[in-house]
Amino acid sequence: MENLKVMFLGGVGEIGKNMTVLEYGNDIIVIDSGLAFPGDDMPGIDLVVPDISYLIENRNKVRGIYLTHGHEDHIGALPYVLGELPVPVYGSRITLGLVESKLKEFKNVKYKGVSIKSGSVVKAGNFKIEFVAVNHSIPGAMALAITTPVGVVVHTGDFKIDLTPINGEVINLTRFAELGKKGVTLLLCESTNVERPGTSMSEKTVGKTLDNLFEDLVDKRIFVATFASNIHRLQQIMDLAVKYKRKIAFSGRSMINVSETALKLNELKFLRENIIDIDKIDKFADKELIIITTGSQGEEMSALTRMANDDFNKVHLGENDVVIVSASPIPGNEKAINTVINKLYRKGVEVIYNELADVHVSGHAYQEELKIMHALVKPKFFIPVHGEYRHLKLHQILATSLGMNERDIIIPDIGMKVEVNPEYIKIAGNVPAGERLVDGTGLGDATSVVLRDRKLLSEDGLCVVVLTISQYSGEILSKPEIISRGFIYQDEASELITEARDVVVSAMQGVDLKSLDPNIIKQMVKKTLSTYFFKKTKRRPMILAILQQR
Amino acid sequence: MENLKVMFLGGVGEIGKNMTVLEYGNDIIVIDSGLAFPGDDMPGIDLVVPDISYLIENRNKVRGIYLTHGHEDHIGALPYVLGELPVPVYGSRITLGLVESKLKEFKNVKYKGVSIKSGSVVKAGNFKIEFVAVNHSIPGAMALAITTPVGVVVHTGDFKIDLTPINGEVINLTRFAELGKKGVTLLLCESTNVERPGTSMSEKTVGKTLDNLFEDLVDKRIFVATFASNIHRLQQIMDLAVKYKRKIAFSGRSMINVSETALKLNELKFLRENIIDIDKIDKFADKELIIITTGSQGEEMSALTRMANDDFNKVHLGENDVVIVSASPIPGNEKAINTVINKLYRKGVEVIYNELADVHVSGHAYQEELKIMHALVKPKFFIPVHGEYRHLKLHQILATSLGMNERDIIIPDIGMKVEVNPEYIKIAGNVPAGERLVDGTGLGDATSVVLRDRKLLSEDGLCVVVLTISQYSGEILSKPEIISRGFIYQDEASELITEARDVVVSAMQGVDLKSLDPNIIKQMVKKTLSTYFFKKTKRRPMILAILQQR
Repeated sequence: MENLKVMFLGGVGEIGKNMTVLEYGNDIIVIDSGLAFPGDDMPGIDLVVPDISYLIENRNKVRGIYLTHGHEDHIGALPYVLGELPVPVYGSRITLGLVESKLKEFKNVKYKGVSIKSGSVVKAGNFKIEFVAVNHSIPGAMALAITTPVGVVVHTGDFKIDLTPINGEVINLTRFAELGKKGVTLLLCESTNVERPGTSMSEKTVGKTLDNLFEDLVDKRIFVATFASNIHRLQQIMDLAVKYKRKIAFSGRSMINVSETALKLNELKFLRENIIDIDKIDKFADKELIIITTGSQGEEMSALTRMANDDFNKVHLGENDVVIVSASPIPGNEKAINTVINKLYRKGVEVIYNELADVHVSGHAYQEELKIMHALVKPKFFIPVHGEYRHLKLHQILATSLGMNERDIIIPDIGMKVEVNPEYIKIAGNVPAGERLVDGTGLGDATSVVLRDRKLLSEDGLCVVVLTISQYSGEILSKPEIISRGFIYQDEASELITEARDVVVSAMQGVDLKSLDPNIIKQMVKKTLSTYFFKKTKRRPMILAILQQR
Repeated sequence: MENLKVMFLGGVGEIGKNMTVLEYGNDIIVIDSGLAFPGDDMPGIDLVVPDISYLIENRNKVRGIYLTHGHEDHIGALPYVLGELPVPVYGSRITLGLVESKLKEFKNVKYKGVSIKSGSVVKAGNFKIEFVAVNHSIPGAMALAITTPVGVVVHTGDFKIDLTPINGEVINLTRFAELGKKGVTLLLCESTNVERPGTSMSEKTVGKTLDNLFEDLVDKRIFVATFASNIHRLQQIMDLAVKYKRKIAFSGRSMINVSETALKLNELKFLRENIIDIDKIDKFADKELIIITTGSQGEEMSALTRMANDDFNKVHLGENDVVIVSASPIPGNEKAINTVINKLYRKGVEVIYNELADVHVSGHAYQEELKIMHALVKPKFFIPVHGEYRHLKLHQILATSLGMNERDIIIPDIGMKVEVNPEYIKIAGNVPAGERLVDGTGLGDATSVVLRDRKLLSEDGLCVVVLTISQYSGEILSKPEIISRGFIYQDEASELITEARDVVVSAMQGVDLKSLDPNIIKQMVKKTLSTYFFKKTKRRPMILAILQQR
């Protein structure tokens, strides 16, 4: 029997998240196809999608893409991936609805979606993929139980245990128990909240908090900022709109798109006549309105941020407004959302956020929920996924505390290839993987050199020096021209720049510029200026030397 | 009777923190002289110090600088401020010790420090300044009770209520009560933790957690990362070193400097012979060592970050090491410290941080402590200070919940001038204030233009185009030279650049370059290239056009 190969193709910082690949014999199945958002060390980059060159090389083997749920970090790379690898896509109805809404902007992508209900099984060569219902902060989330020649592999996707969910199914704990009883060779389980003891709260608790708040806010205009994809959260807000006789308006492109898709698919149940266009809100009294908006992460171009900046012509905030931020910041976004909250307070808006009231719950399993998953599935081997390295390590420790042997657990990495059979699990090398940077229209052309230059430029700016020499005599024909940007605020006539021009001229004195390689002359100019500027300013701007010969 | 003026000169985002100024008649006193760290929108900036032009204009009135405690955001701007305004500095012995240690690097600064014990009173013209002991995450923290012609002004500085502190004094609640009973006109109270219900925990609780951890970590080498200035934390670690028969080594420049100052002043009590140099740790067994290190915020150049990066030649981390991160991230630092923790785990190091165990407590009062301060001081007027705008607003709400009238509370802002007398408090205009950016050796010369350029450069890079035209005919003498950095990785022979050169030439065809203003020609070139690049790449690099005439 050959080994099953498990590979992790996507991610920035977080491992085993955007794309996981299983290969056996002539068959490859791809789990999820998500994007990552760029880190602080990737200035100017819009998105990061997985490197799929391994899949391209093996394109004849790829049977399809199997989606666990519809979040961007699980479906966001599909337009790019399908462009190069047009294979069928399997997922729940709402997941595919979100995929299709996204693909509208990408005209040339071939797409064949296959809608799957929980409990269904899809055959793909050596694999049989069963979709198992789980709870998460989006409807239609499913784990995958994959029957392979080496045994059953369970991939939880993102999940939590919510026994009182809003709509849709409760996590199918019974099915996980059955799978565990029959024997599971490998579990891949998410690790996002492994640092948190206890269990996550039910989505329903947020509804109770919002109900109490809405009851008190009788005469106020209410804004709720949340993730567009948190359709259960939207449903609860809309149910409260009915209770408190308010109309609903959506604000922000993704909020409008997602709510439209969810209403169409009946995942969101609400009378159309109670939804009003954001342009029409001025026709209603404050107390008749709830505006559901994007911007819960303080994103620069989001509706809420633009409202806070007085840069959103459809809504003007004032003292009778309340903004409920029904989300918690994704690590790295803390400052951005705090800035928005400060600006809202400055406008006299009342802001209610997670530090002040329980207006958000996580969609990811806490420690006790993870333990329940392990206890039910009882895997022979375990790979913790979906987390930064420390989360995966802590998940390993959690699994050993439940009795697993450390050697039966592998902490994966981006690009790692793991091999599994009924006897053992092992690391078996690497495949190309990781970051392809989407920057404007360019896919993958913003290299590390470009990023390094952007970082350097952002720190001390740059200085361009143009030196004109005679091609006959090698003589310097005029004092060099110097222009700076982002370095120091000095016009070209300033003392610093004037002196810099002289410094270049004197450094070149006695040098036979005629016979020197132009690149060497440029290096000399750069070095001279760099030393001079550092001495004067303790800064090191990037220096671009241009040599003109005439 | 004239009004007392209260002005807020420092800060970035946080208000009423780095420097507060009181003025009455011919007298000005300055409370604190701190720096702020630059925001994400200030690339390349090292530090931000308050704009003191108001003090410079009124230099004859300034009686002195009165320090509440020795944190950087309260003393860090002194080298810059004293350079321009050499006035006496008052503070506790340890606060001045930290000031003097800092001033060693600034040779030309005139400094006269006056060491003050809690309970002492300093006269300064119209003001009498009494120092009142408080607790905080640094020893020698004191509030100021300032008798003025309009009544008593209490400024809490940073404080918490810790009735079981490690060394030194308990907060003098009795004195605050006496002041309140006699009548306080104005309270300025810090607001950092106004979002947090309940009370902060005593510093002593951290010692208990560390004791339990150290007991379990028998054979391990122990690292503790914390703030150098948290001398009580250091004392507890050093007491445990005695208990568990380990030596102490300090790592990181500020850790070495602060511990040296504190030992000298007997604020840190420890046998010198039990401190070893970090260079000597290899002579001791792992279980004989505790290394106290900087880097609890994941700072790029700190000792811990360098250890995690294998870039610290004195310490090499491995599987027998445990790092305890005894701090919580300052907002904005979350990603940096998480990256360090991930790297440490990858080395097999065990990491214990605040999510996993109670290895840190805050130095700032929680809601119930703030309420106690208000209840004791019973001020007529109130200005919440030390916080972002939302904190100040929430502190106002807290004060009104205790019975204050909203009109007796003013939420300050950077540069605001407030006037107070026994009858009323009011906003009375603005003074120059806020950010002076320290960038290399330059103080205040990195203007918003420079910062905007750095931000633009970091996003899409830049492109330099050199166009050479004949000064006689206006004819283009050769195809323009184009160089890019941080834009797109393309050499000068690439299709994009080659085409760009042609695009410039054709755009100029038929234009009478001879008679046009050079600036207009440059604008034309910029616009042409910008449009072309955006069409091809969806990016907008900064374009620098250089015109050469020969």
